[in-house]
Amino acid sequence: MDTSTFFLYLLVILVTARVCAEVAVHLGAPAVIGELTAGIVLGPSLLDIIQPGETIRFLAEIGILLLLFEVGLETDIRKLINTGRSSVLVALAGFTLPFVLGFLLAKLAFDLPTLVSLFVGGALTATSIGITMRVLIDLGQRSSREGQIVLGAAVLDDVLGVVLLALLYEFSVAGGITLGNTGKVLLFILLFFLIAPVAARLISILIRHVDTASDLPGLIPTAIVSLVLFFAWLAHAMGAPELLGGFAAGLALSRRFVLPFGIALRTPPEFFMRIEAQMRPIIQLFTPIFFVTVGLSLNLHEVDWSSAFIWAFFFLFLLVAVASKFGGALLTPEPLRQRIIIGVAMIPRGEVGLIFAELGRTSGIFDDSVYAGMIMVIAFTTLIPPFLLKTLYQDRPADSGKTGISDTKKPPSEGGFRGDDS
Amino acid sequence: MDTSTFFLYLLVILVTARVCAEVAVHLGAPAVIGELTAGIVLGPSLLDIIQPGETIRFLAEIGILLLLFEVGLETDIRKLINTGRSSVLVALAGFTLPFVLGFLLAKLAFDLPTLVSLFVGGALTATSIGITMRVLIDLGQRSSREGQIVLGAAVLDDVLGVVLLALLYEFSVAGGITLGNTGKVLLFILLFFLIAPVAARLISILIRHVDTASDLPGLIPTAIVSLVLFFAWLAHAMGAPELLGGFAAGLALSRRFVLPFGIALRTPPEFFMRIEAQMRPIIQLFTPIFFVTVGLSLNLHEVDWSSAFIWAFFFLFLLVAVASKFGGALLTPEPLRQRIIIGVAMIPRGEVGLIFAELGRTSGIFDDSVYAGMIMVIAFTTLIPPFLLKTLYQDRPADSGKTGISDTKKPPSEGGFRGDDS
Repeated sequence: MDTSTFFLYLLVILVTARVCAEVAVHLGAPAVIGELTAGIVLGPSLLDIIQPGETIRFLAEIGILLLLFEVGLETDIRKLINTGRSSVLVALAGFTLPFVLGFLLAKLAFDLPTLVSLFVGGALTATSIGITMRVLIDLGQRSSREGQIVLGAAVLDDVLGVVLLALLYEFSVAGGITLGNTGKVLLFILLFFLIAPVAARLISILIRHVDTASDLPGLIPTAIVSLVLFFAWLAHAMGAPELLGGFAAGLALSRRFVLPFGIALRTPPEFFMRIEAQMRPIIQLFTPIFFVTVGLSLNLHEVDWSSAFIWAFFFLFLLVAVASKFGGALLTPEPLRQRIIIGVAMIPRGEVGLIFAELGRTSGIFDDSVYAGMIMVIAFTTLIPPFLLKTLYQDRPADSGKTGISDTKKPPSEGGFRGDDS
Repeated sequence: MDTSTFFLYLLVILVTARVCAEVAVHLGAPAVIGELTAGIVLGPSLLDIIQPGETIRFLAEIGILLLLFEVGLETDIRKLINTGRSSVLVALAGFTLPFVLGFLLAKLAFDLPTLVSLFVGGALTATSIGITMRVLIDLGQRSSREGQIVLGAAVLDDVLGVVLLALLYEFSVAGGITLGNTGKVLLFILLFFLIAPVAARLISILIRHVDTASDLPGLIPTAIVSLVLFFAWLAHAMGAPELLGGFAAGLALSRRFVLPFGIALRTPPEFFMRIEAQMRPIIQLFTPIFFVTVGLSLNLHEVDWSSAFIWAFFFLFLLVAVASKFGGALLTPEPLRQRIIIGVAMIPRGEVGLIFAELGRTSGIFDDSVYAGMIMVIAFTTLIPPFLLKTLYQDRPADSGKTGISDTKKPPSEGGFRGDDS
């Protein structure tokens, strides 16, 4: 790709995302739906005018990392610990039920081979933290109790999904699973979660000291982006999903950060506000690129709309995908309304689901119709919940300006990174 | 390249650039020297641990575009018009003298073929706006009279350099130059300069209206970056250097913008300040990537240090490169001190020079030793002037906070994008 084409692609992605997001908000839908739609419009499903090269994909990855960083930054770790039991319950049920039900449905009702059925079940497990949190942020419900439960559960789900993917991949390549490898993957991920927040916290203290001592402006943008990239890289190196690196970096810089043994460290409010103010435009620039590329990666033409198999597959697995995520939510001791919200918020699959489907196709495990069915299920789980959540939250006010400093020029609409102005 | 490697590369580039910039400033050199050094250290000249792929190069291009945008944004167009005559004089002499002297030296003293000599002369013509303005910004002299003269001259030089490159390229491929093509290139560039600022101004008014009407935060980062990308693409499509698109977009959003026929349009200060505050972190993130990649693109190993030809070539052409840029500066009616500063500021070659050299090598016009000699000359013209300028400005105060709002948290050191704290 030459530079000029790249500029044009990036330009078209940014402008289309914004226009579609404005239309979506005007029609009463969350902005993220507009950005996903922009991808579907520009991609192979409709116009087919953007072929995202390596660079667009990398920029999209930075976008989702930064969104997770922001989610971490705005997380109150004590709330996360308070909601821990509910989160674990939601995550475990929301992982096990789709996997088992998906596997059984594929194996028994559709008579698919065992390995195919395992991949189908796996693709149904992981909740998309990015889409779920983005919708809650758009609705101003990031800091609500159910928001915290969903966040904790989605993080756990992502970890479990990646472990499962590693195991299934090994199984499909080697024909078996060794307990040693499974243990290693789990150990590394556990290590990452113990080390990362503490290390990120130490680095953030270093950044603050350099910032005070340095005469040179511009430290915060490069230092914070570097920190996020470092933990994404570290997460990957230790076998954890890269996204969790972004989340860990954000968590470590959040207002109140609790180390193990109850040592609480407060980020000085002045430093926290400068980080928030300077990172906000960067996050706002990169995140739409991610959601557009999710839309770009769906190809609705791959679906043979006249096949009965596809429709049966689609409806039954969509049912499983939706119902199975409610299982854990209904078990929690929350009020019914909250349980319903949690269940709905856990529905979107997104990235990890798509990675499962893609791996299934490229390794020859999925044939075209199973792949198309999976893609449709994933697409619908991603597109529907934002509307349901918006309806469920209709009569409830957004968190009032909890998410940090407001833009002094335009207080009501730029309170948070993506706005708490539902 | 996989995502994880990309994260690591970008991380290493950002961190090394910052560390080297801090060291440079500590040693009394401009920050940009540190960033160029970081590239030389990480690149083939020394450690050879970073092979910038397509993505890093694209990010670097965005970096230089945004820097030019910032230069345009901070430009007072009336000052630029006031200094117009001096700029034109400096540019014409600073273009003609290096080209003619370089050609004659190559042809007569080194007995090189005509086409090679033309390319050598061409590579010596274009002033690097990016490096020159960055140094003046670092020294807080962006808005000084000589800063404005250099800016105007560098813009003109870049246009002339690109026209010459187009002509020489045609000459080397087709064996001749048609007057029609030359006229077409010139006409398009002229058109671009007439249309671009007006169009950008109209778009910026549109952005302001959408910004007022929209409920969705995050308009400014995506809209302004899109605007810059659009004009870079447009400039390229019309045969002008892409950088000038970034400059035109910035100019159109500057505080006081004058249309032809003397119609002055003021950007509302509140809107201007929001653009500045929100674009600053994005610019600070991207620009170091550009300067690091300039360092990465130099390979000091390509120089056969024992060859007498290389040293003779290097010293004589360096002399021509330095002396010829003083020609125009000395003709201006400015005080002697200003004339010297202008002469020094025009010395850095950089991008366009490297493009000439690269085209010379890949088309087989330059052999290894001529290429290595050119690279050395370009490297020295880029590395030396920042030190000279810093010395020349030692006893003069920086512009005091002319460049817009200051970061309320840290007023003295973040007055401008890259700091006016010399």
